[in-house]
Parts: sequence; C-alpha cells; structure tokens
Amino acid sequence: MTNRPTISPVDPALETRLRARVDGLAKPPGSLGRMEDVAVRLGLIQNSMTPKVQRALLLVFAGDHGLTAEGVSAYPAAVTTAMVETFLAGRASANAFAEAVQAELRVVDAGMATDVPDRPRLLKRNIRRGTCNAAVEPAMTAAEVESALSHGAALAKGAAEEGFDILALGEMGIGNSASAALVMHCLTGTPLAQCVGRGAGHDDAGLARKQSILARAAARAPGKEPLAVLAEFGGCEIAMMAGAVLGAAAARRVVMVDGFISTAAALAAMRIDPYARDYCFFAHRSAEAGHRLMLDALQAEPLLDLQMRLGEGTGALLAVPMVRAAARLLSDVATLEEVLKG
Amino acid sequence: MTNRPTISPVDPALETRLRARVDGLAKPPGSLGRMEDVAVRLGLIQNSMTPKVQRALLLVFAGDHGLTAEGVSAYPAAVTTAMVETFLAGRASANAFAEAVQAELRVVDAGMATDVPDRPRLLKRNIRRGTCNAAVEPAMTAAEVESALSHGAALAKGAAEEGFDILALGEMGIGNSASAALVMHCLTGTPLAQCVGRGAGHDDAGLARKQSILARAAARAPGKEPLAVLAEFGGCEIAMMAGAVLGAAAARRVVMVDGFISTAAALAAMRIDPYARDYCFFAHRSAEAGHRLMLDALQAEPLLDLQMRLGEGTGALLAVPMVRAAARLLSDVATLEEVLKG
Repeated sequence: MTNRPTISPVDPALETRLRARVDGLAKPPGSLGRMEDVAVRLGLIQNSMTPKVQRALLLVFAGDHGLTAEGVSAYPAAVTTAMVETFLAGRASANAFAEAVQAELRVVDAGMATDVPDRPRLLKRNIRRGTCNAAVEPAMTAAEVESALSHGAALAKGAAEEGFDILALGEMGIGNSASAALVMHCLTGTPLAQCVGRGAGHDDAGLARKQSILARAAARAPGKEPLAVLAEFGGCEIAMMAGAVLGAAAARRVVMVDGFISTAAALAAMRIDPYARDYCFFAHRSAEAGHRLMLDALQAEPLLDLQMRLGEGTGALLAVPMVRAAARLLSDVATLEEVLKG
Repeated sequence: MTNRPTISPVDPALETRLRARVDGLAKPPGSLGRMEDVAVRLGLIQNSMTPKVQRALLLVFAGDHGLTAEGVSAYPAAVTTAMVETFLAGRASANAFAEAVQAELRVVDAGMATDVPDRPRLLKRNIRRGTCNAAVEPAMTAAEVESALSHGAALAKGAAEEGFDILALGEMGIGNSASAALVMHCLTGTPLAQCVGRGAGHDDAGLARKQSILARAAARAPGKEPLAVLAEFGGCEIAMMAGAVLGAAAARRVVMVDGFISTAAALAAMRIDPYARDYCFFAHRSAEAGHRLMLDALQAEPLLDLQMRLGEGTGALLAVPMVRAAARLLSDVATLEEVLKG
C-alpha cells in the first residue's frame, strides 16, 4: 500500500480543558448548544485553546461516470463539463454561496471525460477520462485509486500550506449519486435499495431503473475493503475527495463535509484511517434519500437541515460561518468571572 | 392610537416571477430546498428580482424586569448591566458571532434599571428604569408601550436609512423569558405551563417557582389586545423590539428574529400589523421550552436548530450568511438555459 498521510488523533486532555473554557464563558453553561461542540471540536482539530479561522477553500472535484451510459442519471453526462465551465465563470450556486461566506472556490478535474482548457481556478489532476461503466466492470484500477488518493492528499496539504483553515468538499459529476450509493452500500452494509435516491431529479420510473442497474452492479460484491470498493464503484472525484479528507486531517485542518456524495468520500477516508473522523464537520443533511442513513452509520449529526440536495459544496459552504463563529467564541468572549468582577 | 409605520404587503405577482427565476437557475429544480424559499422571500421583501444584502445590524435591546424581585430568574438582575458592559466592550458571544458574520452590533438601553455611561455603540432610548413587578401590577403604562414602539420603529427606520439591509433582533434582560412567556400565553392562548421554560438555567425547583409566580400574574388576564398585553406583561426591550419589527417592515428591510424573547416581540408586532409577518425570517428554534410552540402558533419553520438558548441575537446572527447567500443566488447564478447554450 502506498504511503498515506499520518493523521494524529486529537488530544482528550485538551478536550477537557476546552469544555471547561466554554463552560466558563459569560453565558449560562450549555446555552450555545451545538455551537459549543463546534468550538470544542475546532480547538481539538487545531490543537489550540484559541483556534483561528481566517481562510476557507471549497474544492469542487469533478468527474465523469461510465455508469451514465446505463441511464442512472436524469441529466446527460455533458452537464458535468457545462457545470465546470459555469464554476470557472463564477456563475454556479456554489460560487454564489462561496462569495456570501467569503470562501475561495477552485475546481479540480479529478476525472472528467473532456479536457477543459487551462483556467486560473482550474486544478488539473485528471486520473482518467471518466470511469468505466461500473454496471458491468470495475470503475477504475487499484493504481488509479491510489493516484486519486495521492492527488487529493497533496491538494489538501497544499491548501493548508497556502493558509486555508477550512477545506470544504464539493463535487460535480453526473452519475455520482449512483456511485456514492454503491460505495455506501458496500462500506456500511445498508441494503442497496435504501442507499439509492433520486439524485439530481429522477421520477419514479427513473428511480426504479437506477435501482435495478445498481442492483446488478452490486452483485459483484467487492467486499468492505475501502480501496477495493473505490476501485469497483467509486468515481474519480469520490476517491480524490477521500484523499483530500486524509490530507486535510493530517495537516490538522477542518474538513467540511457536504452532502451525499462527499459524505461517501469521507466515509471511505474514515475506513482507510479512522482518525480522519476527528477532523470532519458534517455540514448538512441532504434531501437525497440515503444521506440520513449514511450519517446515522457514521453517528454524525449534521449542523444544518435545509432540504438541499444540489451538491457542489453548497451545504458545506453554509456551515463555514458557524465554524468562524465558534472560533471567535473561544478567542474573543469574556469569562463569567471577568464579567462579574466588572 | 399613535401613528404606526405603514407596512406594505408583498407582491404576489412578484412571488410567481421570483419562483420561476429560481426554478430556471442552473441546478435541478428544488435542489436548494429552503434556500430557494429564502431567496424568494428576500426578493419579495426588497421588491426586487435581484435583491442585494450588504450590511447587517444586530440591535441588542436591553431592559430590566421588576418580576425579578419574585425570583423568576436563575441569575441576579445586576447581570443585565454587567452583560451590557460586556457587549460594549466587544466581549460577549453576540459580539463574537457578529464579527464572524460581518454584522455590526449596537446596544439599545430600552429600559435598564441602571444608567450606563455614554459609549459609541450604546443607543439610549430608555423609557423607564426597569418595569414594575408584573407579578402584582402592570409592567408599564400604555403611554410607555407607545413610547417603546415609537423608539423601536425609529431605530429601524434610521438603520434602513443608514444602509442596513438586515435588522437582526437581540436582547438582554434578566427575567425577560418570564415576560415573554406571559406575552405568548396571552397572544396565542397556549396554556401558561407550556409557555414557561427554564430561561437562563432554572433547575426543577426554580422552574416550579417561576410557573407559580407567572400563574398568579396571568390570572389578571389582560385579554388578547397586543398593546394591553405589552403594558401588562411586556418588558421595555420586548415592546421596543416589536416597534423595530414594524419599522423595519415599513422600510422593506429583512427582520431576522432570534429566539424565544425576540419571537414574542415579533408575535406582538404581527398582532399589531399582520403584514409585518412578510418581512420576518425566523433564524432558529431555541431550546427554551415554549419556543417550538410559539413558532408553531406563527406557522414559522426556523432555519436553524442548534439547541441554542442564549438570546443576545446569537441565533439571528448565524442565519445572516444564509440570507446573503440567497441574495447572490438570484443575482449571480446562471440559468440552466445559459449553461446548456455554453
């Protein structure tokens, strides 16, 4: 197995100190609810009693899926490239949200079928021009999975070195909810039918077709080993996001997980290295059917529940200000003792 | 009755156009869930297809409560002043959150018992030095309620003229969850016991005492007329917040409602002028027991549910970036048609 980034577990002694600090702030104990947990988790991630959050980066990992040949998506495969062009033009929903929360957005060509011309916000890390049709054969080779993981880890390491405190995960890839459903099924053991949802917008007939195609694929049963599962069913963007989770955790940076597809990538990362879990926030619960169950399997309670199911990192972005607020809670707020002394 | 600000209803024809615009953006229809509703509501408030959100202001309305003489709060009344000093020093939780979401924070002395020396961020609109003990007599006079409403409306109008697009409501006042519970009980008809919660942190015995004190007060039954209810049981800060809701709505500005106490103020405002409802976002569901029922009575589904119960406007602030994101959705994002044309 290739070298992986080394992830340190967070410090349980620091957790006790952070909790005591939060409890001693000028407010009734517990009155900031889950924001107090966010503050403690952030301190643990940065290994600091006074964590800081300045810059946030959304990486939108793009990839195409051979599975689309089977009709697993309500949208044509060409939409992946059209949407990548839209991100690069600054005109997608994720661009709008990124501006609103002061995050930077960059696009990673992880495995697009089409070569997009060079552009300032485009990071070319293409490992193959779209996956094979996972309905009938493995999506990619073991070497390609390794390459995706390495690229993802290197991107996260580079972002950390550049000064980003938060790495938000986004993705674009027609067909990738099908891929994510298969990954979820293999890694969590959840019955496939409960992992498969409407994705970008299947009607009942489309959903039934997607279920049947994926049942055929799932019969190949690659087991539970995360690298084997990624090779059999993963998308290039899913594997590269998993690598980014590992790389960001190794660099002690916040990973902001988005919806169904990026959670599948985070799940794979956590199966590769369970310590990765400590560095992840789960931004929102997607309206995609399987997401609730995948979060349950991870015992993850997301911060937001807005019935969103777009992907692109839109949910992850909306949780960024909450982490900023949590950082300032620990750094800026007086203790009750200070206040009562006057 | 004194002159009230004139609130225009929002335009139903514009709602249809806004919804069509949101549906036509480069994303599957409905895939941004409740953020799409936020975008439509924002467009209606600003009466624009391309709403803008630049500046947000949190006003923290402070007041003292004669009720505290009965022991309705787990904290001593002097904490109101101590916390106001903390806001003015920039060291409360609301200051931290305001910085994180790029909102300005100002404190309004609506009815503090103590005169706080002049400070840049302090707006002195004191209508009386704390309310009377509402357990045994009306909290304030009808003239004082009118004065509070007028000051609140003028503050909101001034904020709008200064260029603020969002007015977030915050409050500080030991004892004000007791006052808000009485207001809720009178205006919604919810049984008092279900309106009363632990506030800043009562134990079971404290909660039982609070219930019993408020039951005695509620027996005076001032009816359902909002001005009479505010005079009987309101806090100065609650009445002034209600005025601010009316003033902001008249100026077509977003009102960001916080938790239990500010929702009681918004409720009173809506009973004074039902059109005020159209200009309000409900930021979060507080952990204070009665808040869920008060939101239900208003048929309001809040944006966040983080088990927070601090007040100060902390919940309102966390929802500000969502409104910013919704504004950019309408203004910045390409249509699906534009994307597919390439």
